[in-house]
Amino acid sequence: MYVITLTTDFGTKDWFVGTMKGVILSLCPRAVIVDLTHDIPPGDVRSGAFALAASCRYFPKGTIHVAVVDPGVGSSRSALAVQTTNAIFVGPDNGVLSFALRNETIKSIRRLENPVCFLQPVSHTFHGRDVFAPVAARLCRGFPLRKVGPAQPDLIRLEWPSPSASAREIRGEIVYVDRFGNLITNLGADLLAGRDLARLRVKTRRARPIPLATHYQAVPTGKAVAVAGSSGLLEIALNGGSAAQRLKLRLGDKIVVVDAMTALTEAELTSHKTAT
Amino acid sequence: MYVITLTTDFGTKDWFVGTMKGVILSLCPRAVIVDLTHDIPPGDVRSGAFALAASCRYFPKGTIHVAVVDPGVGSSRSALAVQTTNAIFVGPDNGVLSFALRNETIKSIRRLENPVCFLQPVSHTFHGRDVFAPVAARLCRGFPLRKVGPAQPDLIRLEWPSPSASAREIRGEIVYVDRFGNLITNLGADLLAGRDLARLRVKTRRARPIPLATHYQAVPTGKAVAVAGSSGLLEIALNGGSAAQRLKLRLGDKIVVVDAMTALTEAELTSHKTAT
Amino acid sequence: MYVITLTTDFGTKDWFVGTMKGVILSLCPRAVIVDLTHDIPPGDVRSGAFALAASCRYFPKGTIHVAVVDPGVGSSRSALAVQTTNAIFVGPDNGVLSFALRNETIKSIRRLENPVCFLQPVSHTFHGRDVFAPVAARLCRGFPLRKVGPAQPDLIRLEWPSPSASAREIRGEIVYVDRFGNLITNLGADLLAGRDLARLRVKTRRARPIPLATHYQAVPTGKAVAVAGSSGLLEIALNGGSAAQRLKLRLGDKIVVVDAMTALTEAELTSHKTAT
Repeated sequence: MYVITLTTDFGTKDWFVGTMKGVILSLCPRAVIVDLTHDIPPGDVRSGAFALAASCRYFPKGTIHVAVVDPGVGSSRSALAVQTTNAIFVGPDNGVLSFALRNETIKSIRRLENPVCFLQPVSHTFHGRDVFAPVAARLCRGFPLRKVGPAQPDLIRLEWPSPSASAREIRGEIVYVDRFGNLITNLGADLLAGRDLARLRVKTRRARPIPLATHYQAVPTGKAVAVAGSSGLLEIALNGGSAAQRLKLRLGDKIVVVDAMTALTEAELTSHKTAT
Repeated sequence: MYVITLTTDFGTKDWFVGTMKGVILSLCPRAVIVDLTHDIPPGDVRSGAFALAASCRYFPKGTIHVAVVDPGVGSSRSALAVQTTNAIFVGPDNGVLSFALRNETIKSIRRLENPVCFLQPVSHTFHGRDVFAPVAARLCRGFPLRKVGPAQPDLIRLEWPSPSASAREIRGEIVYVDRFGNLITNLGADLLAGRDLARLRVKTRRARPIPLATHYQAVPTGKAVAVAGSSGLLEIALNGGSAAQRLKLRLGDKIVVVDAMTALTEAELTSHKTAT
Repeated sequence: MYVITLTTDFGTKDWFVGTMKGVILSLCPRAVIVDLTHDIPPGDVRSGAFALAASCRYFPKGTIHVAVVDPGVGSSRSALAVQTTNAIFVGPDNGVLSFALRNETIKSIRRLENPVCFLQPVSHTFHGRDVFAPVAARLCRGFPLRKVGPAQPDLIRLEWPSPSASAREIRGEIVYVDRFGNLITNLGADLLAGRDLARLRVKTRRARPIPLATHYQAVPTGKAVAVAGSSGLLEIALNGGSAAQRLKLRLGDKIVVVDAMTALTEAELTSHKTAT
């Protein structure tokens, strides 16, 4: 297989992404290049890491994933190629690969240091074109990974916010807001297993109880609902609109999943306090 | 041929479209995937239907068109694959395929119900990835259409707003506003055949007469002009700018094509009334 | 090779680009189509010319580059195919190809006039679909260039703003603003060769001296820096933000590279004047 995916914060307004594709096709004409997204907010390594982790497992075995969200381009940060049992990941060593690699079995981590692999002269501002694209293209056509540079034992990892769970409640936070305004949390669907969905409610920072259901349209238009999202994470949505806008919630906001009885009791308490 | 087109409201900010491509390439590595557009306004089935209808006939015979504008995902709405003499259309049964199918000879309509065709487990929120992409990929590599599910006699169709025409005037409305602010109407170029273009004028809701011409630059910069657009529909444009902004017109607004003499008379009447 | 690149101002909201790809794949199924960008501001021939010039040399030899920024579509402007020693360039004769061709050795310039090459009937508003896409596809599959239409000696060229350089200073202007807010100037890195980078400063309209360095993070976060950009041109950036926003500079604004001593002297003069 010859699939190379690209995840960047380059946007599509300029020629940056197209240029990377030109470099790849020059070195590996058979490469099939797939855009994951180029609209990661500029320099937002965390969102880039999330996007890559959410999609990489849907690609054919042997795919090469290139992620360039790289505010430190031209500085002393390292660049890496990481071989796993499923794929190869290429990008700066700033954490952008780390969420995807949490779910992978790593076989080898190499620093990109062999100048033969790069487009010369290497610019100080566009390693997407001069380093990452040519390395991915060469790996795609069979250049041995061990020759791109020396091995290193581990890579920089972004901290994944761990949820906490007890019998009565599960605490988490919002880790991604998508184009529809759906609020993706760090609560895995597995945390809900064995619990009674019909009795559970999500409470947000504003103590608004939201029912759990199986799909968006399980609630009336304009109402909020929590569902097990397509990434395997609990997700707060609005039927027919943007949950982020309506609920005024955003990245990093806390949420709690509680038993409905508890939720109602606490809600009653809150309204009591407000009323007095 | 192995062309699969994608039309969605997923945007390009997230990993949704890229993930669909990963699924397709995993099942059908030879597929050539073409984005029609992913910027259909969220849930706007009608605009998705229009975009697909405007472009599908320009693709090679045998192309598989996948349209996922699907606000009812996870509910009881059906999903379809429709074989015509030219192509296969795949999407939810909510009307998004119906404008394209107005111009096609349908050979078979099948509901997507065979779980063997899907990515398991099927999520309740992302059938683009779990249902439509894998079905399209399987059809692309030769899986028989009759095995995706049972036949059904027809599909849900959106109403196409029909224009009305008499000897003296043609009445229609704006059915799409493109990125340039061009206002596409439901008036087919054929309605104008045999009439004297030089004498015809377009009048909008605001009774502003606009000349008909063959191309945008037939009028001075900043002036409005009506032309036979590239979709075969009459289109109101502004030379060097956005007709939608300048004329303050939008989707659904009414327009009338009248003989110039009539237009002037009515315009005179209007200014007379305003003056008194 | 079968690479065709597309550079347009069509945006990605509508079906225009997808339709061009359908036409190309219908005529040349093996074509590998690469988007350079479709977000050139509507009618901005100059930015389209810049984007194409900045990226075309990174593509394989024999690539066909199609550029459609074409406010004069349907008028009497000519359409061209230009063969160089590296590639073929296809587009309207309005200057959009001219920056790219400054760096190429031209072998032949042909006007697109042979109706056999077009999609019939040719619309008056969408030559991307009816003229440029089919011509590119035919050339891609081996149709001889000499048969697309008559030769012409030259093409319309946009003026490239030439910088002026003396021993003491170099005067230029901003020629492109990218998605990150980086300000690309017309000053080639070669103009700086042999000068002492550490002593040089960029002065803008607002007399703010900006240091030259090798990469963005050579200055603290939030500070401006001038670097040799990836297009070989001097570029003003902000570490961790948008230089365009922070410095309130835009396309066409003048800049001067001066010796640091001079810069300080003039800056002192300026603050003196402001103070009194």
